[in-house]
Amino acid sequence: MIRVGIVGGTGYTGVELLRLLAAHTAVELCAITSRAEAGIAVADVFPNLRGHIDLAFTVPDMAALKACDVVFFATPNGIAMGMARELLEAGVRLIDLAADFRIKDVAEWEKWYGMSHACPDLVAEAVYGLPEVNRDKIKSARLVANPGCYPTAVQLGFLPLVEAGIVDLTHLIADAKSGVSGAGRKAEVHTLYAEAGDNFKSYAVPGHRHLPEIRQGLAARAGKPVGLTFVPHLTPMIRGIQATLYARITQETDVQALFESRYANEYFVDVLPAGGHPETRSVRGSNFCRIAVHRPQGGDMIVVLSVIDNLVKGAAGQAVQNMNIMFGLAEAEGLGGVALLP
Amino acid sequence: MIRVGIVGGTGYTGVELLRLLAAHTAVELCAITSRAEAGIAVADVFPNLRGHIDLAFTVPDMAALKACDVVFFATPNGIAMGMARELLEAGVRLIDLAADFRIKDVAEWEKWYGMSHACPDLVAEAVYGLPEVNRDKIKSARLVANPGCYPTAVQLGFLPLVEAGIVDLTHLIADAKSGVSGAGRKAEVHTLYAEAGDNFKSYAVPGHRHLPEIRQGLAARAGKPVGLTFVPHLTPMIRGIQATLYARITQETDVQALFESRYANEYFVDVLPAGGHPETRSVRGSNFCRIAVHRPQGGDMIVVLSVIDNLVKGAAGQAVQNMNIMFGLAEAEGLGGVALLP
Amino acid sequence: MIRVGIVGGTGYTGVELLRLLAAHTAVELCAITSRAEAGIAVADVFPNLRGHIDLAFTVPDMAALKACDVVFFATPNGIAMGMARELLEAGVRLIDLAADFRIKDVAEWEKWYGMSHACPDLVAEAVYGLPEVNRDKIKSARLVANPGCYPTAVQLGFLPLVEAGIVDLTHLIADAKSGVSGAGRKAEVHTLYAEAGDNFKSYAVPGHRHLPEIRQGLAARAGKPVGLTFVPHLTPMIRGIQATLYARITQETDVQALFESRYANEYFVDVLPAGGHPETRSVRGSNFCRIAVHRPQGGDMIVVLSVIDNLVKGAAGQAVQNMNIMFGLAEAEGLGGVALLP
Amino acid sequence: MIRVGIVGGTGYTGVELLRLLAAHTAVELCAITSRAEAGIAVADVFPNLRGHIDLAFTVPDMAALKACDVVFFATPNGIAMGMARELLEAGVRLIDLAADFRIKDVAEWEKWYGMSHACPDLVAEAVYGLPEVNRDKIKSARLVANPGCYPTAVQLGFLPLVEAGIVDLTHLIADAKSGVSGAGRKAEVHTLYAEAGDNFKSYAVPGHRHLPEIRQGLAARAGKPVGLTFVPHLTPMIRGIQATLYARITQETDVQALFESRYANEYFVDVLPAGGHPETRSVRGSNFCRIAVHRPQGGDMIVVLSVIDNLVKGAAGQAVQNMNIMFGLAEAEGLGGVALLP
Repeated sequence: MIRVGIVGGTGYTGVELLRLLAAHTAVELCAITSRAEAGIAVADVFPNLRGHIDLAFTVPDMAALKACDVVFFATPNGIAMGMARELLEAGVRLIDLAADFRIKDVAEWEKWYGMSHACPDLVAEAVYGLPEVNRDKIKSARLVANPGCYPTAVQLGFLPLVEAGIVDLTHLIADAKSGVSGAGRKAEVHTLYAEAGDNFKSYAVPGHRHLPEIRQGLAARAGKPVGLTFVPHLTPMIRGIQATLYARITQETDVQALFESRYANEYFVDVLPAGGHPETRSVRGSNFCRIAVHRPQGGDMIVVLSVIDNLVKGAAGQAVQNMNIMFGLAEAEGLGGVALLP
Repeated sequence: MIRVGIVGGTGYTGVELLRLLAAHTAVELCAITSRAEAGIAVADVFPNLRGHIDLAFTVPDMAALKACDVVFFATPNGIAMGMARELLEAGVRLIDLAADFRIKDVAEWEKWYGMSHACPDLVAEAVYGLPEVNRDKIKSARLVANPGCYPTAVQLGFLPLVEAGIVDLTHLIADAKSGVSGAGRKAEVHTLYAEAGDNFKSYAVPGHRHLPEIRQGLAARAGKPVGLTFVPHLTPMIRGIQATLYARITQETDVQALFESRYANEYFVDVLPAGGHPETRSVRGSNFCRIAVHRPQGGDMIVVLSVIDNLVKGAAGQAVQNMNIMFGLAEAEGLGGVALLP
Repeated sequence: MIRVGIVGGTGYTGVELLRLLAAHTAVELCAITSRAEAGIAVADVFPNLRGHIDLAFTVPDMAALKACDVVFFATPNGIAMGMARELLEAGVRLIDLAADFRIKDVAEWEKWYGMSHACPDLVAEAVYGLPEVNRDKIKSARLVANPGCYPTAVQLGFLPLVEAGIVDLTHLIADAKSGVSGAGRKAEVHTLYAEAGDNFKSYAVPGHRHLPEIRQGLAARAGKPVGLTFVPHLTPMIRGIQATLYARITQETDVQALFESRYANEYFVDVLPAGGHPETRSVRGSNFCRIAVHRPQGGDMIVVLSVIDNLVKGAAGQAVQNMNIMFGLAEAEGLGGVALLP
Repeated sequence: MIRVGIVGGTGYTGVELLRLLAAHTAVELCAITSRAEAGIAVADVFPNLRGHIDLAFTVPDMAALKACDVVFFATPNGIAMGMARELLEAGVRLIDLAADFRIKDVAEWEKWYGMSHACPDLVAEAVYGLPEVNRDKIKSARLVANPGCYPTAVQLGFLPLVEAGIVDLTHLIADAKSGVSGAGRKAEVHTLYAEAGDNFKSYAVPGHRHLPEIRQGLAARAGKPVGLTFVPHLTPMIRGIQATLYARITQETDVQALFESRYANEYFVDVLPAGGHPETRSVRGSNFCRIAVHRPQGGDMIVVLSVIDNLVKGAAGQAVQNMNIMFGLAEAEGLGGVALLP
């Protein structure tokens, strides 16, 4: 049994991690920490876990965490980087669901996240945990930077085109729509039901923190910088992201075949038959990314539709997938649940 | 492996049955029939099943169904009663998710359902599939009448009070609220998103088909007729029922202890600690019924709050639970998933 | 022109008051105060008001408020009672949308609201602003206590029965369901979209602040105390309340005729034809209360269905209705908008 | 008083037209026809109209319609073209909310709409009813083709750029998101609450009927053909469209000033201050289009955000605006309502 600790389990990525790990047969849940909720039973905060998880939240305790084989950080940005070195030195492997280790350019990270980085050397070591790109490195990683939700949906949608070098890389467009759980379980006015319900809007059009993460990932596969316009939107649903991607084709290719071939061996990436339109509910609660690719009216614009559950493939599910890879388990272990539809 | 057939798998109870059975390790899915969708892959109708179920819908074929150990009817009312005798005679056990075999008084059934019953003798034989009441009879049943969604939530909430005989049985009130999936996957105007969204209403206040079913179940436990006012409401969510129940206490009792004791050995009925308020999302996608019991301001009115997922404990999940009981499996087999929250 | 001031215009009752007053031809909006948003244009906080209201929020300024003919308090509980005396002495008439002046029994108020009352004598003077009961007193009132949202829906539904004395007054039941805007525009976790969406629950079953208000109103009409069980629920929609009311008839009466007669001259109370089921969306954004009355299966239980928009007839609309009465305007002035459906 | 008839008033554009006209002081509603609902009171179908509209639906009756000054067609495509000539010859002016007269190229229309056109000569005469482009022609028009919902949001967003000739016209992108009421009040499975709720998807990516309409409108202003990729999405809300538009700037311009100048005299087009993000709820129930324009990271991509209520500025409200222009009334007459927020 893999001994697992979770730091900061009171947000949506935390409860989702608990939901998935409760059903994971190779895992023993040893510690769940939350300074704010210490002493409270997990199932009192998240009533779906009644009968499944008996633990209570504790204050973060390094001794207990050091006794784990792997620790997940489901914390706000800036927490993991303060605890990572000590845990790594104790031989614990880490998966950070926040952004502390995602951006290799530390100065760029500091600009977007507005704080100094506590351990730039660990940024260099960290493996970006997108299995469809970095599976081999993840196997032996001590420290995995779990990708953001938008970056997962956008990169998986663009990768076949970018890797094949068949589109204009200077003017990629990602028009992304997220359910409200993507904003987290924080008391804020703009994500109240009466604010976000029956409403649609863009936000952060001048610049969103996931922009440099996506650009870094695509540039690495392209072998050169990419130009990307990224516009996120808030849509009145709880879970789900759809990224609608636009790229101009520069070299004639059978894009349907390209996508099918690229993901032929990727269990969690499902390329729909030509002409398909994926729906976010088809992945609700599951770790799949479903993708369709179109070329409207036979023009030179490629349109890719990519959907994920932001809390699963976009966060906790991908983290479990990474853990499975790191510990030599079947990659889909504990991730076999069928999406909830309707 | 239990060989399973499903008749009429294109509604919401059908797709939910498929979701649950896809994860059930003791089951082999042999036939899924739908006259309207014959020839179409199941996963083309329900994209959440892509990668999980490879079967296509077929026209109903008695030979194929007779080769099954158990057949589920996820059909409109009136279908199962036309096929039941032939399948039973072939040794197949049946679980009807529709209403054909729920009401013992055939005349009453015919009044509420507006048709003649095709096999009244089988009504007499059928076991009402509420495991918390009829577990022993279900074990050996050939024909199980799976309860309705409202009847499950309402009966589980009232049972401890009715069985203990401590409330006024002549004026029970059940104020029940259902998500829109309870109306089924039929093209109708009143359940369109733009009609049912951001809207709340009662319906069928003069009389709803689940009224006689609930009255029959409660009367059986009380040993005498009960008076019940049942008011169903449509609430703008997809899944979930809350029944808010009112009964006047006639004999002083510790009702919290009564409920805890009644359900101490029932895995799928979770009695919350005193003062609790269950939420429908705490059972979304799961087979639990969560119940809280109150006595506001110490008066003589008992208020019971009972929540289920109408498609799981209120339909497909309870059907699988019944199958497990009928075939000697662990009762929770294939039903271990944690509710999806948020 | 009536000179109007609003204290505390940044909540949902505040913005709704602004929406209604912007279309009111007999009103001049003179001051809108908010300590937190002082200096910010109203239309920057509430973009629906762009092009309709040019004012900015100001810090509360007694001089400016004293120059008004009427001041609305759209503040949290406890604010109005601190400013009321000074404004009344300056000749300003007041309408408090909060609860400071609703409960005549000051000790009872202090128990439920957890604070000492600043001016019990004004409580005695205040007129409870339910026009269908107190129209004449409202005309000359200096201080109107605008009713709560649940109390409006529940009282209008019970009034004909209680006034006629034809039901058992000792066991009234009000099962009420509210949209999430009823919880206000406060940053809290439990009303986030991802918490309250696709979810249904009861809350405050042991006791809710609107219980004594409803009991007081019904008792006044009955001429004796009433016994009431009041269970509020949160339903996933933005606006709207439905109260489903249960009362046992003790004296044979044509209840449909009773309701039609009671409200024959009440423009804002619409009694549906026999057999009707009102929907909350039929009053979305409008000041109507729509009511239907049933007697299921001809038994002795009367079921009343009463719907309002909690922000209009349940708050801001009723406040404008009261203002119209106080200033001798047509009662529906500025309240003529048709409900938004779909 | 303008005598008004409505053909086909049982869909969402019909009820919205009725809501708006009920509050319009210069209009007398003379006839509302619906073959399916003939004889039924309008307020029985749309309960928000109780107390506002006393008419009943009638079978279409040419004599009654000919007695009107203006007739609105709120019918499915293909109905208006069959009745238009006779009504025009009787001196009635027509506003078609369907698509019969929108596309000047009749062959193109017949390809997208799958039927033969009944009166191509009237297509030539019809004025495309986008007041911000064709106000002068609308004044004297006998026959107005009211624009589609997506075309209104997309054209108003692109017009300043296209008219100024400062963007690459060969690769315009419109990523548009619509609430579910845009699909109409038809009994269909895919727009059921349990299908469209908590779900997001693209549809019709290979080609949507609004594509040729938008291309025609933009080409007319550009003076040459435009290349447009148009991807519509269904978002789980009732009303509202957001169009997110992408265009590459080819000539340095202050785009904020350009938009403000273009719409300086357009009451119903509201250009937000630089940096803004319009929300669909800010126009819910109102006739405004709110627009913001961005240039992310100072690159060469212009992003325009354009929101409307699809049933108001995208249908019935724009139709009333056109009527006001045709009959010399103030353009905002009957359209002064403030958007409903929350």
